[in-house]
Amino acid sequence: MKFGAALRVPGGEVDLTSYRADGTPGFAGGKKSGTKALAKLGAELAELQERLFAHGQAGGERSVLLVLQGMDTSGKGGTLRSTVGLVDPQGVRITSFKAPTDEELAHDFLWRITNALPEPGYVGVFDRSQYEDVLAARVRGLAAPDEIERRYDAINAWEREQIERGTVLIKCMLHISPEQQKRRLLQRLDNPEKHWKFSPGDIDDRRLWPEYQRAYEIALERTHTQHAPWHVIPADRKWYRNLAVAHLLREALLGLDLRWPVADFDVAEQRRRLIKEKLHL
Amino acid sequence: MKFGAALRVPGGEVDLTSYRADGTPGFAGGKKSGTKALAKLGAELAELQERLFAHGQAGGERSVLLVLQGMDTSGKGGTLRSTVGLVDPQGVRITSFKAPTDEELAHDFLWRITNALPEPGYVGVFDRSQYEDVLAARVRGLAAPDEIERRYDAINAWEREQIERGTVLIKCMLHISPEQQKRRLLQRLDNPEKHWKFSPGDIDDRRLWPEYQRAYEIALERTHTQHAPWHVIPADRKWYRNLAVAHLLREALLGLDLRWPVADFDVAEQRRRLIKEKLHL
Repeated sequence: MKFGAALRVPGGEVDLTSYRADGTPGFAGGKKSGTKALAKLGAELAELQERLFAHGQAGGERSVLLVLQGMDTSGKGGTLRSTVGLVDPQGVRITSFKAPTDEELAHDFLWRITNALPEPGYVGVFDRSQYEDVLAARVRGLAAPDEIERRYDAINAWEREQIERGTVLIKCMLHISPEQQKRRLLQRLDNPEKHWKFSPGDIDDRRLWPEYQRAYEIALERTHTQHAPWHVIPADRKWYRNLAVAHLLREALLGLDLRWPVADFDVAEQRRRLIKEKLHL
Repeated sequence: MKFGAALRVPGGEVDLTSYRADGTPGFAGGKKSGTKALAKLGAELAELQERLFAHGQAGGERSVLLVLQGMDTSGKGGTLRSTVGLVDPQGVRITSFKAPTDEELAHDFLWRITNALPEPGYVGVFDRSQYEDVLAARVRGLAAPDEIERRYDAINAWEREQIERGTVLIKCMLHISPEQQKRRLLQRLDNPEKHWKFSPGDIDDRRLWPEYQRAYEIALERTHTQHAPWHVIPADRKWYRNLAVAHLLREALLGLDLRWPVADFDVAEQRRRLIKEKLHL
């Protein structure tokens, strides 16, 4: 079963209201079997990631970049913990993009994004990304309309460049319903251990829901390309969201088709040396 | 049971030959119960780490820095995967220090170390560290003797500064026996999937074993302080090594004694706002 094929947007016009936020495309089971399936994926993901890492250490140039976008509470952090947490943290580079700093604003919007790219052999994860510069920036008028227009093409050109350098991009929009967001905000309010995750502005932001959805639709229309396709991940069910992103990561790693690096030394000779050595301890 | 107390070096002269590499100080059980104990620690560690992260997001200034040192195959990477892998990767900053680059060599040895410090709220992990500059540097003569001498005091002053800024340091020497290292190197040679981890130089390095042990002893003597104590972790048994480091991390996080941040908004009022809102979707 290919999650990528099930979740990839078809290209052309995007109408997010036609995507169910509580669906489970590509998976027939429920929460229990989905959770089990994710746990089972863990070992495979860990091996695939280690092979990518080994490849990088041996001079290979491939890397993977997982881009997570979504409304507040859609679970970018949770996906990271549950999915990316399955592989060796040493091989992962996570960047959480916040509102740009003064230094970042003094550069082109792609400057800080470029600085956060994973090195060869690594899995990079962007929690928010270059897309905030056409999403929040559009909805909140943080940049002039013609600058926003320019950015879609700039992003496409930049992504094409990364792909040519050996990076596989996985672009995910975690698609949550406003009702589910409300439930999750209430849960945060009702649990003192989650109060730090809440800000009164989260409720104000909900008034901008339609504008944000429209900004997502435009971004998905303008930056969905053959080499860097967008996926809409139904995210009302956490277990499905995690499973889906894990599968996309697996498919991307499998697609690299990497073998373990071959020894550049004579294995038998090194074995003999080690067996025969005399140490004076 | 306090692992910290069991593993902390007493101060004063250090004779590493008096430390068993296959011991399990502070833990009475074997591999099976040790592995179970580590899994059980996972949830507690994850919560403690999240509390630290929340504290950082709320303006707190505390952080934790785990320094892992040890001979090749002592399991710095494995500890990271098994121990640090138990907590949310978003809250962790891992740095693997390699031989310094030209840019790094153009600065004081602590320059790159300072750049890698965890921000408030984060758990930083150093896979190798400032100590390479008094270990490898001493054994291989990579710096003049009086420069090496200067570095012990420089490290102590630097560590004191980090502690005053709110960072808790956990310094671990993963203590492996040369026999166990030989077994692990043979395992790497005998498994084609591990060949990328092996280099013929690893066998040459074994001839320097006594010099490295002596360099560790001197480093432990000169840089063991009340606020930044050294721990010698018997590392021949992987399960014990992982459990011990996890416990040290737990003790450090518990020692911070952090509470969940208190809401700076009226929870009941926000709850009402959210319940009563009317969205035009």
